[in-house]
Amino acid sequence: METTQFVLASRPYGMPSAANFRVEKINLEELKDNEVLLKSWYISVDPYMRGRMNDTRSYVEAFQVNQPINGSIVAKVIESRSNKFHKDDVVAGTLPWSVYSVQNAENLRKIDVSKIPPYYYLGILGMPGITAYIGMIDICKPSKGETVVVSGAAGAVGLVAGQIAKIRGARVIGIAGSDEKCKLLKDKFGFAETINYKISKSIRKDLAKVCPEGVNAYFDNVGGEITEGVAANLAFHARIALCGQISQYNNTKLPAGNLIMSWILTKSVTLQGFIVRSYTDRFDEALTCLTQWLNEGNLKYTETIIDGFEKLPDAFLGLFSGKNQGKMIVEAD
Amino acid sequence: METTQFVLASRPYGMPSAANFRVEKINLEELKDNEVLLKSWYISVDPYMRGRMNDTRSYVEAFQVNQPINGSIVAKVIESRSNKFHKDDVVAGTLPWSVYSVQNAENLRKIDVSKIPPYYYLGILGMPGITAYIGMIDICKPSKGETVVVSGAAGAVGLVAGQIAKIRGARVIGIAGSDEKCKLLKDKFGFAETINYKISKSIRKDLAKVCPEGVNAYFDNVGGEITEGVAANLAFHARIALCGQISQYNNTKLPAGNLIMSWILTKSVTLQGFIVRSYTDRFDEALTCLTQWLNEGNLKYTETIIDGFEKLPDAFLGLFSGKNQGKMIVEAD
Repeated sequence: METTQFVLASRPYGMPSAANFRVEKINLEELKDNEVLLKSWYISVDPYMRGRMNDTRSYVEAFQVNQPINGSIVAKVIESRSNKFHKDDVVAGTLPWSVYSVQNAENLRKIDVSKIPPYYYLGILGMPGITAYIGMIDICKPSKGETVVVSGAAGAVGLVAGQIAKIRGARVIGIAGSDEKCKLLKDKFGFAETINYKISKSIRKDLAKVCPEGVNAYFDNVGGEITEGVAANLAFHARIALCGQISQYNNTKLPAGNLIMSWILTKSVTLQGFIVRSYTDRFDEALTCLTQWLNEGNLKYTETIIDGFEKLPDAFLGLFSGKNQGKMIVEAD
Repeated sequence: METTQFVLASRPYGMPSAANFRVEKINLEELKDNEVLLKSWYISVDPYMRGRMNDTRSYVEAFQVNQPINGSIVAKVIESRSNKFHKDDVVAGTLPWSVYSVQNAENLRKIDVSKIPPYYYLGILGMPGITAYIGMIDICKPSKGETVVVSGAAGAVGLVAGQIAKIRGARVIGIAGSDEKCKLLKDKFGFAETINYKISKSIRKDLAKVCPEGVNAYFDNVGGEITEGVAANLAFHARIALCGQISQYNNTKLPAGNLIMSWILTKSVTLQGFIVRSYTDRFDEALTCLTQWLNEGNLKYTETIIDGFEKLPDAFLGLFSGKNQGKMIVEAD
């Protein structure tokens, strides 16, 4: 049986482009025992994948040139030789960017799509949601009345992080890249204030205006100049969850100097880098809470769903210019 | 009664110089009730005082132009109108850089110099020792077999921090600024390895050679390029106690860019700025432990004692070129 897949054609230097991806057709092998044939349904593209395009050791394995890209995918079972799964089951797992694939049943988990949209398992009930939960609850630790800033606030993780801070009683300020995103954050997601960093002349000064008492916790998805602007407003004993640095992922030289260390020092700041996979023992708790908040209506979510398997590289590249509101997803089927 | 004191003559731009200090003679007022007349004996000079020379709000109050410099001092009671203190008592406190001064008894604590050299209260049993204890025990949290790096290792805080890590069973690597200091760290203070940063062509590579498994905890007194070299060698879940940044205190422009954030992120590092005065409830515990380790011979210490009150500015300025081994102290009497 033939399938279409995306492989890494070459490693990018700086900003990736469509030329780093190549579409190709391959034949799948026959199903063996314990294997299933899948058809990709929803495919996640995420900023962390940029790091996997480099040939460097990091916390996730690098993509290999001429090998398929892989990531979080929701897929339908087309045929099964596993007694764990039946035809028409919906599963999630780390799968190749391929229309069809043959997978061992052990690498998949069945998901319930009777009440929840399937793509939620790539966002609010997937890696981004859990990341937001751990970073906010365990590291930012907001308490009632505190001020929390989220960068990349309209992104897949930032949206959830900000709402969790609000659930905990904090006043939440979101930094995002368009007036439309800022409006959405206030109107739909309950952010108290927003800053459009693309038109702000000084994040530092604009933030000082809306948080005169300082920033008690900062959930950072972005890094760079935005983080410098926030750092200058940190309150004593502030916490920073260093979750992502999307502004830096395509750098080809060292970023300009920054003063963050002096703020960390003089404000007794705790800055903690973290990776969600270190917290597997907390996933159940996270999903229980996220689901409850969703059901209560305290947590909302949004997606940017791009139609068509062939749009995968475009969707991925769009992350770096902020084309998404909420979770960026490709609908393949 | 006349005394000689040092005042801040002007605020430095960049590296301070003797011209920023002025010696002057003033008349002291008569003693009132609850006051004592003191003669300064040992006067501490410390890197954090550089920040107090700037006109900026920080965690310690700034020195004022034309007003006396102040800091930790051990002094003798010459005359007392307080029933807390008698003539010839030895006291410690935050006092002006003055040969004589009149102080309210409430600002002073009596110290026992029958078994312990008086200047220990400015070093190992004073602010530097407690700082080392908190940063190492609470933030670096070294366990047996781990590798711990200390920058500014031959300084007042670094010496103690490194030895505490060793007491906790860690293998300790010290970074210091001369072969003589490095030899001292190994021969007298039990450091396993040392790097002389003034002759190292690459801290990163030299450190990688002596800690192939990576650095589990880093006690940073220095910042800048040394910290970048250490950051590149951090192990997963490494801890950094950000105690000082002496390499940066005299900067007049932003330091060159660095990659530390990417390491903090990918290694799930916790970096915590801290200030010893946040831990006043732990001072007793710290002093009890430090005293016990000293008495057992597990903790050693050294000082650079400069003779003569008039040498105070020189001693202070010498901190920035690393003229001290261990605690820098001026003997005024």
